[in-house]
Amino acid sequence: MEYKVFLDEKDIPRQWYNIQADFSTPLPPPLNPGTGKPIGPEDLAPVFPMNLIEQEVSTQRWIDIPEEVLDKLLMWRPTPLYRAARLEKFLGTPAHIYFKHEGVSPAGSHKPNTSIPQAYYNKTFGIKRLTTETGAGQWGSALAFACNQFGLECKVYMVRISFNQKPYRKMLMQTWGATCIPSPSPETNAGRKFFEENPEHHGSLGIAISEAIEDAVTSKDTRYSLGSVLNHVLMHQTIIGLETKKQMARFGEYPDIVVGCVGGGSNFAGLAFPYLSDKMNGKEMRLIGCEPTSCPTMTQAPYVYDFGDTACTTPLLAMHSLGHGFVPAPIHAGGLRYHGLAPLVSKALVEGLIEAKAYGQLQTFAAGLTWARTEGFIPAPETNHAIACVIEEAQRAKEEGKEKVILMIWSGHGLIDLAAYDAYLSGKLQDTAFPVEEMQRLVAELEKFPRPAA
Amino acid sequence: MEYKVFLDEKDIPRQWYNIQADFSTPLPPPLNPGTGKPIGPEDLAPVFPMNLIEQEVSTQRWIDIPEEVLDKLLMWRPTPLYRAARLEKFLGTPAHIYFKHEGVSPAGSHKPNTSIPQAYYNKTFGIKRLTTETGAGQWGSALAFACNQFGLECKVYMVRISFNQKPYRKMLMQTWGATCIPSPSPETNAGRKFFEENPEHHGSLGIAISEAIEDAVTSKDTRYSLGSVLNHVLMHQTIIGLETKKQMARFGEYPDIVVGCVGGGSNFAGLAFPYLSDKMNGKEMRLIGCEPTSCPTMTQAPYVYDFGDTACTTPLLAMHSLGHGFVPAPIHAGGLRYHGLAPLVSKALVEGLIEAKAYGQLQTFAAGLTWARTEGFIPAPETNHAIACVIEEAQRAKEEGKEKVILMIWSGHGLIDLAAYDAYLSGKLQDTAFPVEEMQRLVAELEKFPRPAA
Repeated sequence: MEYKVFLDEKDIPRQWYNIQADFSTPLPPPLNPGTGKPIGPEDLAPVFPMNLIEQEVSTQRWIDIPEEVLDKLLMWRPTPLYRAARLEKFLGTPAHIYFKHEGVSPAGSHKPNTSIPQAYYNKTFGIKRLTTETGAGQWGSALAFACNQFGLECKVYMVRISFNQKPYRKMLMQTWGATCIPSPSPETNAGRKFFEENPEHHGSLGIAISEAIEDAVTSKDTRYSLGSVLNHVLMHQTIIGLETKKQMARFGEYPDIVVGCVGGGSNFAGLAFPYLSDKMNGKEMRLIGCEPTSCPTMTQAPYVYDFGDTACTTPLLAMHSLGHGFVPAPIHAGGLRYHGLAPLVSKALVEGLIEAKAYGQLQTFAAGLTWARTEGFIPAPETNHAIACVIEEAQRAKEEGKEKVILMIWSGHGLIDLAAYDAYLSGKLQDTAFPVEEMQRLVAELEKFPRPAA
Repeated sequence: MEYKVFLDEKDIPRQWYNIQADFSTPLPPPLNPGTGKPIGPEDLAPVFPMNLIEQEVSTQRWIDIPEEVLDKLLMWRPTPLYRAARLEKFLGTPAHIYFKHEGVSPAGSHKPNTSIPQAYYNKTFGIKRLTTETGAGQWGSALAFACNQFGLECKVYMVRISFNQKPYRKMLMQTWGATCIPSPSPETNAGRKFFEENPEHHGSLGIAISEAIEDAVTSKDTRYSLGSVLNHVLMHQTIIGLETKKQMARFGEYPDIVVGCVGGGSNFAGLAFPYLSDKMNGKEMRLIGCEPTSCPTMTQAPYVYDFGDTACTTPLLAMHSLGHGFVPAPIHAGGLRYHGLAPLVSKALVEGLIEAKAYGQLQTFAAGLTWARTEGFIPAPETNHAIACVIEEAQRAKEEGKEKVILMIWSGHGLIDLAAYDAYLSGKLQDTAFPVEEMQRLVAELEKFPRPAA
């Protein structure tokens, strides 16, 4: 049996796939929250460089990957595609399970697929410094790595409670030359008021975003960078699915089911959108996004216009949202604790092109442990959501006696998240009930805004 | 430019290379410390299974890798061979620098190359449980992974100070189902006396080895497993160099200089011995082992008969040794803090076939940081010793205007060692003087034993 397929460097995809070209109706535009009118590219110019804004709104199907970006992606890409034959055997399933191993990047996840092009486009536009926020730290370290590669300064506002609990992430950013400070900080207006009230304030992603954006728009030659949600971010991730298609062909297979975990939605989209393109052209398959039951954006939230951040500083985006004020339970899969869902993934969900499933924390760690003890590699807590779904589908295939082909994205490794496994093995983790009334209260507040066309 | 070359799974080497077949004189045999006479295989039988003891003493040049072992090695092998073109550019060197990336294994280092076959041979011999010791934790986690794959129980005695300082390593072992306890423990005679004196005793590798061996020889169906030093361990690692030769041929190059870090010597031997075979057949090249100045076994220690462990429970081995009682400074490269040197590497050094260089801790972290900020991947503190040498040789090539081909083994990643980088970046690390009189005192005690033929 062949367990994995590499691709030669010369076979790396040279264009990104832009799914905006293929939806039957256009994506509802971002709105100005004051006027309720669509915003123009110039409204985003203080925050993002114009070349990335152009990508954000482009409806061109294929966009060339610049040579300088390819040159950096080749540091770890093409990533291997694996057959999870040991897991299949353990489950006794007739299903064929494949996983695309995105944990081999220097930062350990799929995030550098977009941090590298974002750093490149900013540099090309004359920007010298990028700011961002990070919760668990995956995105902050990916941007630190990319900025280091292109000689840009990088400043990361890290939610203080994570900054204190996950010191290795901060160290990783610093090793790549970035500055990482706990948020709320005394260095911005947005942070100072919280910091002065309480210098040990735990912080939140909302405050950290506000700090990073304020820093970007008030500093010379500085822009802000976001690790998920936006159209250009998801497009940069499609290199994952485009590589996978070539590799699946080498295995002589085509997936019946494509699976990925979903926070903002970028790793799922990266694998799924190139397949969704086939589905829109008549190919039969299921595409399943997997989220935590404690932050069930896809399975519970309405399709609305809402702010992308907690602090209401962004335009309104058409998406599934639990309400921008929603604070998910402190699960270990920090990368999935986002109140909204990328507009492109939201649209695919509204149109019935993809499915969604939610999993409790205990089930996801049980799945991750099964993975570690069969396939060896330690998955990130986020990745465990996709694994829970794969195991469920493989067991169903066994019950039905069907040789289903299941393909998942293994979004990153869990070597810096081992404390979460320790908590699980010590019986310290629990599942929490989803506060549905809280969500209803928060989304009721969104009725003052227009509703996106479904 | 092509940055990396993979090998297809079908091209994985199917035999290990045993350098014992090619030395001009036989390796001096292990001795019984009481009688001064060579020990026989049966003397090792309580500690190791007979099939591994046979490998230990074999002088057959090629030994088949069992299919069951290959099947497990394919979980991550063949590993990629990279051209470090970004480092070359940064240094402005005409040298071509290549590195074999052993950090892609589930445990993050080269160690599973031997833990997998050791677990296999023990299982085949009817053993149900393995014990070992671990200092920094790399070996303990590699054995935990291998035992999990073959369904063996695994118990790791981890030096207490590391157990407390590096909790992620223990968590990694537990995630793979192993038991990891701090040493000295109350569970063995060897540990109990220290534990009862002081339950927070820091421990030492010597005490931990004694505990693991006592456990193995007194428990049912249990044997002991060692992660370096022994002949069969080094032979299992030669798959690294055998793969690399195929990959270097794909790049159309042959190395002028082969570099690796050296603690016991297994990763260096793994890359270097297949090349040393060519050198013994007349090929010109330099093979350089790199060690810490604080534990300079190759550059300062005499070639003697000494115990492999601090507690004097092993046979006497012919090797370079600082004295079994030598306690190296607490540098972050825990894997290089060993008083001795594998007998096979010692013999190669005595015969003038390889060179040795020693590097101070500050120089190695400066080198590691340069690596992280050019090639992206975070190297383990041990690996940084090889990088320091590569940078030195690349700079010499620049001065001399020569297009040298430098090949190194990148033995593992440093994602669980980021605290060491943090200490370096915060200016908290320092170089320590080597206590040469202490070594002289310790090796003088060895005069009561025979001297190995040089």
